[in-house]
Amino acid sequence: MIAAMKAELPPLLPGSVWLVGAGPGDPGLLTLLAAHALDQADHVVHDALVDARIIAGIPAGAVVESMGKRGGATSPHQTEITARLVELARAGKKVVRLKGGDPFVFGRGAEEALALADAAIPFRVVPGISAGIGGLAYAGIPATAKQCNSTLAFITGHDQDGDVPDGFDWNALAKGAEVIVFYMGLRKVDTLVARLLAAGRKPDELMAVVSRAATLEQKVLETTLGRLEADLAATPLAAPALLVLGGVVALRARLDWWRP
Amino acid sequence: MIAAMKAELPPLLPGSVWLVGAGPGDPGLLTLLAAHALDQADHVVHDALVDARIIAGIPAGAVVESMGKRGGATSPHQTEITARLVELARAGKKVVRLKGGDPFVFGRGAEEALALADAAIPFRVVPGISAGIGGLAYAGIPATAKQCNSTLAFITGHDQDGDVPDGFDWNALAKGAEVIVFYMGLRKVDTLVARLLAAGRKPDELMAVVSRAATLEQKVLETTLGRLEADLAATPLAAPALLVLGGVVALRARLDWWRP
Repeated sequence: MIAAMKAELPPLLPGSVWLVGAGPGDPGLLTLLAAHALDQADHVVHDALVDARIIAGIPAGAVVESMGKRGGATSPHQTEITARLVELARAGKKVVRLKGGDPFVFGRGAEEALALADAAIPFRVVPGISAGIGGLAYAGIPATAKQCNSTLAFITGHDQDGDVPDGFDWNALAKGAEVIVFYMGLRKVDTLVARLLAAGRKPDELMAVVSRAATLEQKVLETTLGRLEADLAATPLAAPALLVLGGVVALRARLDWWRP
Repeated sequence: MIAAMKAELPPLLPGSVWLVGAGPGDPGLLTLLAAHALDQADHVVHDALVDARIIAGIPAGAVVESMGKRGGATSPHQTEITARLVELARAGKKVVRLKGGDPFVFGRGAEEALALADAAIPFRVVPGISAGIGGLAYAGIPATAKQCNSTLAFITGHDQDGDVPDGFDWNALAKGAEVIVFYMGLRKVDTLVARLLAAGRKPDELMAVVSRAATLEQKVLETTLGRLEADLAATPLAAPALLVLGGVVALRARLDWWRP
């Protein structure tokens, strides 16, 4: 299967950039296109969220450069990253921009694609497994289940200034979505909890925190909205982490299949 | 990369079932684990949404059985599907349950996993690229973009009876989520439009319909909430289709990179 499919994959051409999602952690969650891209690349520019096992597996022929934004640490501006991609492509390199999860889910991939389009650099998007779906699955939590939800909402835990985002109607969204997954939400847990309670979500509603989902360091905390802050204070968890609110968390008791 | 990573992938053992997401269409979006599962399987039970190119690529040694629910057509009951998976595993087969998209996003995968857990059948979940993210990317529409949205909502277009689901606060969700993606929503477009307008979404808000996303038959209709029904009547599109509402649709003008 792998060999037959590989023969059909398109080439990564000199002077072009592929925006590639690496998935949440497990190297087995790389797509065939992602692995194929890394096999062909001259130059890989990766962000801070790509699993070290994937970086270690990049063939020796490629230059591997780390350029990523990460909460708290000094990190390059997004404009520097896009300028670098354009520069490499204009130098005729076969470039892979490798991002944790999916490039178009809170990953600034749209900005990078727009910059490439505006610079007339040929590009391709290679979607990846987003942590809010695939990472949860490795914690035994289905993003949806017939008996729990016909809606699923993703919210980014902080905007580019590190604040909880505010450009939408928090009350409405918190009230309407049966299951909510927060990406990178650990830094502002107090604000998230206050807003969810203010919107009428119940303190005894189930929550889980999935730290480093689908990596060898995965840790899962099962709690409730009302106990979340105290439980996190007692058991600090490493970033990046997903927070999930809703009835699907209860299914983990029967579906916790993965042992890192 | 592919060869090195393949050596590390876990074996699919006799008497166990892997619930595998096949992604939205493009065989290159299979994960390494998914392709590896198909290379090892004795028996593959697939649903109606798996791309024909993927089915055609399954090695000749495996029995390939179609069992899937599809709107409108006669289809097996979910209990028959789970009973079949349990039966095959108990017969000592290496079983792959192959589903379009991701098994845990509106795909009844949670029900199948619960049935396996309850029957004490060892199982593994292999997440796939969900159409609402990766399929949109193939239509040049990023699910999120910094200038457009810090929230993203998925809603299933119909419940098991074919009706628009009703177990949540429609007004609130429609008001709160900046971008909404409807899965399989073509059959009840009139109801969806009425509910979105009633919740205060504007008739001139951008929408797109992506039919058979990431397959060779992909078609994209760009429209607005107010014009959606008339445009669909004038240009009927094949199921399955995604509907997407929100500012990210405008980015397709610059990001429409894929030619099927």
